[in-house]
Amino acid sequence: MKFCSLCGSLVEIKIPSGDNRPRHVCNACSTIHYQNPKIMVGCIPVWEQKMLLCRRAIEPRYGLWTVPAGFMENGETSQQGAARETQEEACARVEVEGLYTLFNLPHINQVYLLFRSRLLDLDFAAGEESLEVGLFEEHEIPWEKLAFPVIRESLQLYYADRKGGSFPLRGGTIIRTPESSKSYRIMLDSD
Amino acid sequence: MKFCSLCGSLVEIKIPSGDNRPRHVCNACSTIHYQNPKIMVGCIPVWEQKMLLCRRAIEPRYGLWTVPAGFMENGETSQQGAARETQEEACARVEVEGLYTLFNLPHINQVYLLFRSRLLDLDFAAGEESLEVGLFEEHEIPWEKLAFPVIRESLQLYYADRKGGSFPLRGGTIIRTPESSKSYRIMLDSD
Repeated sequence: MKFCSLCGSLVEIKIPSGDNRPRHVCNACSTIHYQNPKIMVGCIPVWEQKMLLCRRAIEPRYGLWTVPAGFMENGETSQQGAARETQEEACARVEVEGLYTLFNLPHINQVYLLFRSRLLDLDFAAGEESLEVGLFEEHEIPWEKLAFPVIRESLQLYYADRKGGSFPLRGGTIIRTPESSKSYRIMLDSD
Repeated sequence: MKFCSLCGSLVEIKIPSGDNRPRHVCNACSTIHYQNPKIMVGCIPVWEQKMLLCRRAIEPRYGLWTVPAGFMENGETSQQGAARETQEEACARVEVEGLYTLFNLPHINQVYLLFRSRLLDLDFAAGEESLEVGLFEEHEIPWEKLAFPVIRESLQLYYADRKGGSFPLRGGTIIRTPESSKSYRIMLDSD
């Protein structure tokens, strides 16, 4: 951010009075432009014992598999956002059930909310952002070709909980390790 | 938003190709400036049977009571944000426990995440944004002087669940009704 989105003047980075961290502040109109984490919402869509996954037709992680998820939009609820992403990426209709995982991704300023959900019919198809969409039994999940650590971790938790027959809220924090941008450490919240 | 924060040119509102909703798009550099919901994080800080509340020294709702909560910041986890807000507003140290409520506030593009938490000591005090801070038994809660519907609803749920001795994840959506900007409808998620 270089310019004020309200008046077009230059912004500078400084700590506003009464604040305790640097913000982008307009030199002319003094507007403070806060930047905050974004919410990713998605579904874990299930039909009987099978899970619906999408193969990404967009970057990042083109060609890898994920559950339907994306940026929550203004004016919607988190559950509506999860259902909308499932409609957009997999042309699928779901009944959104409880929140299942909350993962913090502080290195990219995101919070991931994944909801368990029930696929309402088998009339799904690849949306514009997907190469293909399919239903997978647990032993068919392409673990080595999942797009994101948060998805891999959520699905591992899901299958472990499914054995026990209940799905308490799970979550944690995914921390990028300094060695590599592709290396992560997972810190799970305790039960 | 009138100007591009990257190049300072005028933005216009249009639907980018491949998108399905209007965005602010720069006429010159074509940057799409997405706007997304913000996350509010807070604690329900408890000491024995008492709950810590803060009386607001800032607008909106100056002079009314709330639990410590505020905008989640970049680079932190939701639990760290909840603890930070508690430190800032009540100068109090907490152990953050499980997520207790997730409320959608789509009319103001916010998602509220309130965590149960355990006050670690009684050495609290009013922070800069609070007029006073205090511990309340259930019958002492100033129900008519709570700052926000999401706080009132969360505390009602909390005390109902406390009777049963367990705190499953609760939540719902708070909808502003058309009659008045101060009138709301609460839609709770089912269990």
